[in-house]
Amino acid sequence: MNHIDELKKMKLHLDISRGKPCKAQLDLSNKMLEVIHSRSPFLDDNNYDVRNYGELTGIPEAKKLMADILEVPAENVIVYGNSSLAIMFDQISRSYSKGVLGSTPWCKLPKVKWICLTPGYDRHFAILEYFDIEMIDVPLKEDGPDMERIEELVKDDSVKGIWCVPKYSNPTGITYSDEVVRRLARLKPSAKDFRIYYDNAYALHNIDDQDDKLLNIFEEAKKVNNEDILYMFTSTSKITFPGGGISALAASSSNLEEIKKQLSIQTIGFDKLNQLRHVRFFQNKNGIVEHMKKHQQILKEKFSIVYEYLDKVSDYVSYNKARGGYFVTIKVNHNADKIVDRCLKLGVKLTEAGATHPYHKDPTNSYIRLAPTYLSNDNLRLAMDVITTVIVEQSK
Amino acid sequence: MNHIDELKKMKLHLDISRGKPCKAQLDLSNKMLEVIHSRSPFLDDNNYDVRNYGELTGIPEAKKLMADILEVPAENVIVYGNSSLAIMFDQISRSYSKGVLGSTPWCKLPKVKWICLTPGYDRHFAILEYFDIEMIDVPLKEDGPDMERIEELVKDDSVKGIWCVPKYSNPTGITYSDEVVRRLARLKPSAKDFRIYYDNAYALHNIDDQDDKLLNIFEEAKKVNNEDILYMFTSTSKITFPGGGISALAASSSNLEEIKKQLSIQTIGFDKLNQLRHVRFFQNKNGIVEHMKKHQQILKEKFSIVYEYLDKVSDYVSYNKARGGYFVTIKVNHNADKIVDRCLKLGVKLTEAGATHPYHKDPTNSYIRLAPTYLSNDNLRLAMDVITTVIVEQSK
Repeated sequence: MNHIDELKKMKLHLDISRGKPCKAQLDLSNKMLEVIHSRSPFLDDNNYDVRNYGELTGIPEAKKLMADILEVPAENVIVYGNSSLAIMFDQISRSYSKGVLGSTPWCKLPKVKWICLTPGYDRHFAILEYFDIEMIDVPLKEDGPDMERIEELVKDDSVKGIWCVPKYSNPTGITYSDEVVRRLARLKPSAKDFRIYYDNAYALHNIDDQDDKLLNIFEEAKKVNNEDILYMFTSTSKITFPGGGISALAASSSNLEEIKKQLSIQTIGFDKLNQLRHVRFFQNKNGIVEHMKKHQQILKEKFSIVYEYLDKVSDYVSYNKARGGYFVTIKVNHNADKIVDRCLKLGVKLTEAGATHPYHKDPTNSYIRLAPTYLSNDNLRLAMDVITTVIVEQSK
Repeated sequence: MNHIDELKKMKLHLDISRGKPCKAQLDLSNKMLEVIHSRSPFLDDNNYDVRNYGELTGIPEAKKLMADILEVPAENVIVYGNSSLAIMFDQISRSYSKGVLGSTPWCKLPKVKWICLTPGYDRHFAILEYFDIEMIDVPLKEDGPDMERIEELVKDDSVKGIWCVPKYSNPTGITYSDEVVRRLARLKPSAKDFRIYYDNAYALHNIDDQDDKLLNIFEEAKKVNNEDILYMFTSTSKITFPGGGISALAASSSNLEEIKKQLSIQTIGFDKLNQLRHVRFFQNKNGIVEHMKKHQQILKEKFSIVYEYLDKVSDYVSYNKARGGYFVTIKVNHNADKIVDRCLKLGVKLTEAGATHPYHKDPTNSYIRLAPTYLSNDNLRLAMDVITTVIVEQSK
């Protein structure tokens, strides 16, 4: 019996498609559920009872905590609910309906375009597709976007934004170089309502002991009075609980003023009890950094397993060994769709081929994203066995 | 020294402007913060770990709980985060950007109109103003909207919706009659994308021992195959914590299918830990009903204080003794703005005059909303002393 037949016989049912933390990772934050309790003082630093309405932009301590993750002043931060994706959606939705700082609402324009670095994050692209925003595919390099290309593209005033995951990028795991960050911060697009959507989802998510240093884009933009170009996002989804974290936006004071005004129409406030829970659990950024070392211990092993298997088939596949983040992206030989299909038939669900590109169309049909965090180590070995066996099979 | 001067000397600083629960009410739910803890089984009825991503539409137990409040089947419910206002905003925002079940997006129409029952809820009106939707002011009667007027207005296909707070209405406290609910359920507007925004925020919020019975509009609409006309909303903001409750939307299966599809672009899911917290704390609707009796004990006294003072000045002011909800609305003699200003100068902040009407313009300048829940009983007496003294002063 050949190895494929052996794998078939196992009737596997494994999912390596999405960046979900595993149970051991979730358990790291269970104690957070006890730091506020029925005898808690529910007052925040403003002496405000967090159980009640109010404090639209978040409690001061939570602003400070999220600001420290993003390396910006607390006054430039709004703390939201559990989903940073929802913040990004909201920003685009509001730009579509109402414009940005006085610009024409995008729904009134004949055409709106956006720069999408690829491989990129499918949920970013899905928001643009929803709002009928034309996506321009620009390859992401090892040190970030090709800035020459970007600087050229933003001369077109229908180009209104760019998605960036600057550190441990989803899905390739690369971190932007200082040079790239500096040029992004200095970008002078034709469109005054152009924004860099800077999704710093993996700011503290090391896998290696080495921490990639990301230059502070907020400071860089300030130096050249260009801070209005930035919307920055982060969340604790992959720090505490994806189903019960907190998220944040950071922006310049003029951007923030507009956002607050709009937000006050939309809601009376976000879940401040959960904000307090996070603050009491971590105390400060250092508390998060220490906590992330525990995640790292768990993830390091999982990523090693992935590389151990990939290294054995390195003749057929290329990949970047991510030093952080949640994903490994492999590049195969123009048959990604077939490999994904074949793996699914063998009981291993991968992110669909094409998901890393706008409109789900990878013109090279070569990128596959692996999300190794969720499976147990044993199951991850099985999944990697299937994946690498299929890669070899399909390459012959 | 006359009484006004005595009140001045007290240098009061009291806020009776917003429907915020008082501390004793918030304390009723403190134990909810302990029902999930570090040793919890975090699995819901689907055997899904609520700490992780997933279950976009909410955990099954939470759907059941919220469905029971709204008196609809659980399969017609989506459970959201802590703000039902945010759900309503989203519905209008999506209709504006994308239309409703295939209709033209409202942003592409020359004019969109909406029926606003007055006195009504300022935050409802603010959403419409934000989206430039023209508000048509229709007086709310003791048994709900003037249905003849509504049936006439919906012949105009630019009229796309109506706000309803059907039980213990904000701010007059009235409940819609069976006749009104039946006619609403049978409404046949010209616009296929017309929706009744049915904000049942006070479904279980009795002040009197008597519970107003609200006819089930979902059932009524179903009888005549008209259930697509309804979007229903509720939340636990005034059951557990305004800053940490859960909210829900109910709608027909076709509406829900569209909403889910759009929602999947917007977020990966809402805070399921908080959903589980609510479910474990209450167990079922009966748990909530029992809990609401404790709220009632606290609120009963506060509302009695309001009526005790108002009854003394009944020559100058008319009002409805609400059997539930959060507000008492008084009608004065065309000088509401002056009364509100004068009270503010004496240290008592009321909801602004005009807030009960579209564009903050009460053409009769006579409605003032009182929100008696937040203040301590002693402070409420002081506030009512100021308010009634000013009413008499300004009526002479």
